Amino acid sequence: METTTERMLSTHPQRPATHLGAVAACLVACRECEAACTLCADACLGEQDVAHLRQCIRLCLGCADVCAATERIVARQAAPDAQLWSLALEACARACRVCADECRAHEGCHAHCRICREACENCERACRNVLSAYPGGGAARGAH
Amino acid sequence: METTTERMLSTHPQRPATHLGAVAACLVACRECEAACTLCADACLGEQDVAHLRQCIRLCLGCADVCAATERIVARQAAPDAQLWSLALEACARACRVCADECRAHEGCHAHCRICREACENCERACRNVLSAYPGGGAARGAH
Amino acid sequence: METTTERMLSTHPQRPATHLGAVAACLVACRECEAACTLCADACLGEQDVAHLRQCIRLCLGCADVCAATERIVARQAAPDAQLWSLALEACARACRVCADECRAHEGCHAHCRICREACENCERACRNVLSAYPGGGAARGAH
Amino acid sequence: METTTERMLSTHPQRPATHLGAVAACLVACRECEAACTLCADACLGEQDVAHLRQCIRLCLGCADVCAATERIVARQAAPDAQLWSLALEACARACRVCADECRAHEGCHAHCRICREACENCERACRNVLSAYPGGGAARGAH
Repeated sequence: METTTERMLSTHPQRPATHLGAVAACLVACRECEAACTLCADACLGEQDVAHLRQCIRLCLGCADVCAATERIVARQAAPDAQLWSLALEACARACRVCADECRAHEGCHAHCRICREACENCERACRNVLSAYPGGGAARGAH
Repeated sequence: METTTERMLSTHPQRPATHLGAVAACLVACRECEAACTLCADACLGEQDVAHLRQCIRLCLGCADVCAATERIVARQAAPDAQLWSLALEACARACRVCADECRAHEGCHAHCRICREACENCERACRNVLSAYPGGGAARGAH
Repeated sequence: METTTERMLSTHPQRPATHLGAVAACLVACRECEAACTLCADACLGEQDVAHLRQCIRLCLGCADVCAATERIVARQAAPDAQLWSLALEACARACRVCADECRAHEGCHAHCRICREACENCERACRNVLSAYPGGGAARGAH
Repeated sequence: METTTERMLSTHPQRPATHLGAVAACLVACRECEAACTLCADACLGEQDVAHLRQCIRLCLGCADVCAATERIVARQAAPDAQLWSLALEACARACRVCADECRAHEGCHAHCRICREACENCERACRNVLSAYPGGGAARGAH
């Protein structure tokens, strides 16, 4: 069954000619990761060992902000700039990677860190899938 | 099956004592609405009749921004301010309502406007469900 | 001397017929408050007494998100919805008020909390000025 | 006279050991550019020749989102990830560049495009200044 995001993309006048599924999966992964990171940062703030979770909180907050911006960049379908598209996806994949690494260090104690780590890894993968699908950046895609 | 958001909420040290499902549904609806509105604005920009879609674009952009902020306010679980919680949810419900009304006017011509209208209506409903669940605002919820 | 925001507003095809200065001041105050709150949350996370600053961090993060959304709502000049405009400004003023109150409790120990409190108070005032200037909401303004 | 942002940075427990002025200037430039782009997109939507301004609107919206995320990444002072810091600043500089180039094409007709172009150029410069100041990325800075 198509997701709402896939339906939105497939009714867009400049919809992706190829790889629509990878773009849709990236959009969904970005916002699930943003949500997981926002909730994980807040949960960490409520833990007794908050002093040990400072870096986790910061990386979660940063990852949430980068995911939010990347989703919006990738959502805009018409004639994107190849270089911006690539840099945004690379930045997002990197933010997810460093956040996942930090969350892993705490997932033995805090289940929310484990769930957040999974969301980050999923988002990193989804961003890299789009980067692979459009090696020349979004411009190739937008040129149809 | 629990969504990622429900799992995140249920592992939060200050998780909602009641109505966790309504809160989770609101968080999910806010981000699906943000995504639909971002995509609808971009799709409208690509339509031939863009000049007739100006107001739709503006309302979609505004609705996306309010949904994004509301999701973050509602996601922060510990000791929220009752008045801020209520105002944010009311603002979000209102942004969804006016955007849905405008999108309905164009859904005969543009399928993306119909899908976006449905996402807005779903988000308005989810926000009002949380407002009903916590008539005194989030503070009651945070007080457990 | 005009600020960049005033120049942008005065070259907008649907610029405010009246109270352009109050609208511009509100936009500037929202983004200065967003920045101060983002920095204060990060500074609090770096303090030794981070465990006493949890609520300050959460309120700062929430205030930053509400300020960012409100700036964007107020920036969109044409035919705004009166009720959304008012609710967003009320939510922003409230977020600033609760954040300022919390920051005040810590400003004896942390200078960044004092500077952030001032930015919050300034933003609350700027939002209320716009609410007073357009008692019927933005719609009156947009109707010229 | 110090700006609020400089005062916030200089009272941060992990304030930059060097180049505080460049970091502060980048934060200010990011938010001024976000505001200019948000207003320029809205102004373009109100122009008679909106059909010729579609790409300008999209690039302004994207630039605003990237500037907002970059400001938040740069604002977080403690132990930033060098690679994320660099990618975010590169993405922001690129978003500003493509938006400035598009705005220049319309500035003969629309003064808001000229002011927005100036804000984009200023932000690109401020991002590149920070990249030059910390050739190894933010990690060197965070290591003091």
